[in-house]
Amino acid sequence: MEKQNHIVSAFDRDLEKIQAQIMKMGGLVEDAIRQAATSLETRDEDLAEKVRAADKQIDVLEAQINENAARVIALRAPAAIDLRMILSVMKISANLERIGDYAKNMAKRTSVLSKMPPVSDSTGAIRRMARLAEEMLKDALDAYIRRDATLAAEIIARDEDLDQMYNALFREFLTYMMEDPRNITACMHLHFIAKNVERMGDHCTSMAEQVIYLVTGAHPDEARPKADDTSVSTRG
Amino acid sequence: MEKQNHIVSAFDRDLEKIQAQIMKMGGLVEDAIRQAATSLETRDEDLAEKVRAADKQIDVLEAQINENAARVIALRAPAAIDLRMILSVMKISANLERIGDYAKNMAKRTSVLSKMPPVSDSTGAIRRMARLAEEMLKDALDAYIRRDATLAAEIIARDEDLDQMYNALFREFLTYMMEDPRNITACMHLHFIAKNVERMGDHCTSMAEQVIYLVTGAHPDEARPKADDTSVSTRG
Repeated sequence: MEKQNHIVSAFDRDLEKIQAQIMKMGGLVEDAIRQAATSLETRDEDLAEKVRAADKQIDVLEAQINENAARVIALRAPAAIDLRMILSVMKISANLERIGDYAKNMAKRTSVLSKMPPVSDSTGAIRRMARLAEEMLKDALDAYIRRDATLAAEIIARDEDLDQMYNALFREFLTYMMEDPRNITACMHLHFIAKNVERMGDHCTSMAEQVIYLVTGAHPDEARPKADDTSVSTRG
Repeated sequence: MEKQNHIVSAFDRDLEKIQAQIMKMGGLVEDAIRQAATSLETRDEDLAEKVRAADKQIDVLEAQINENAARVIALRAPAAIDLRMILSVMKISANLERIGDYAKNMAKRTSVLSKMPPVSDSTGAIRRMARLAEEMLKDALDAYIRRDATLAAEIIARDEDLDQMYNALFREFLTYMMEDPRNITACMHLHFIAKNVERMGDHCTSMAEQVIYLVTGAHPDEARPKADDTSVSTRG
């Protein structure tokens, strides 16, 4: 028994260290989302450059988390629930890395869009979407650390708002392009950015699903509504 | 020694079984890419529906592969190189799942685009891109099974062709939209599809990088050219 307790607490310490890295990574990704949206709206190319530079740090953290998780698996040979927790760390860090990538791609387009005339207040609409995604991410990280399945379920429901905002914006872009062909190039980029923010929400949802799986042992209902209805409802 | 040999070969048998599942999954994803591109070009909504149905099978296989890999880690507690091989199985199945998703999204848009007038021969150009992505995938799976780092490096280089095709198509879509606003909605969808195919190539590249990591123990040069230059070079 003595030995078993020792092994369990060594595993717990390992897991805590990795979770601290997850939280650090999550904080950087939250900053990236907010700064990418701000740089787009204020046409701040220096801030956009900062987002791109920070993404390298995010990628390094993901690699470290994966290495550490693999080391813990090899060293502790965790079974069942412990293994599930370590594997979820790897999945969550992959989600964070992808959200960071979307923020970086958003920031990349800032320098292009800064050289074009603004299209209505669309960057404001994107900032509002990004704000929602950032909140979802913050809550997904909280739900993960606290193993809070109720909060996780609430995040999954909130993803529908983000999808609705994206779908509305998609239609808005179509009208701007039809009104004036000079808007087309900018709208193609803006549409891409909006889609990227919508995808951030999908990854927050995936993190929330991981939390539910960790807490209940079951994957949440597969029947959740899909992200993007433009592929079925925009018959132009 | 007897026991050690026994453990090693049991691990090898486990790994072989999982690799067989990877190959099965890879075959389904290859079919999905080809059929999605064909359904788009021939406006075959039944075939598109088939691609969407097959994606569920792909998702189930990914879940099984992850479960089996976790079981092997827990049961065999593999160290160093063996652990690396098991973790790479999980990464490769994640890549395959995402490529399958892109094919499904492509098929989803078939029914929308079938109701619109065709835009030049753009679906043919997309089919050629998809053909290239399918070949990259086939070779990435071969490189993985044969642990062939040379073939893997060649796949990474080939991804540039796919990026160039995407960039050319992006510019083409811009001109169609500017020529005639009635092309705008269709071009938005087609652009999405082209971008999805370009992303398939990124995931094949990621698989090839896994192979190089497995064989050499080092990640390939981070300095590889990035996927999409429209964010920097399309100043419209």
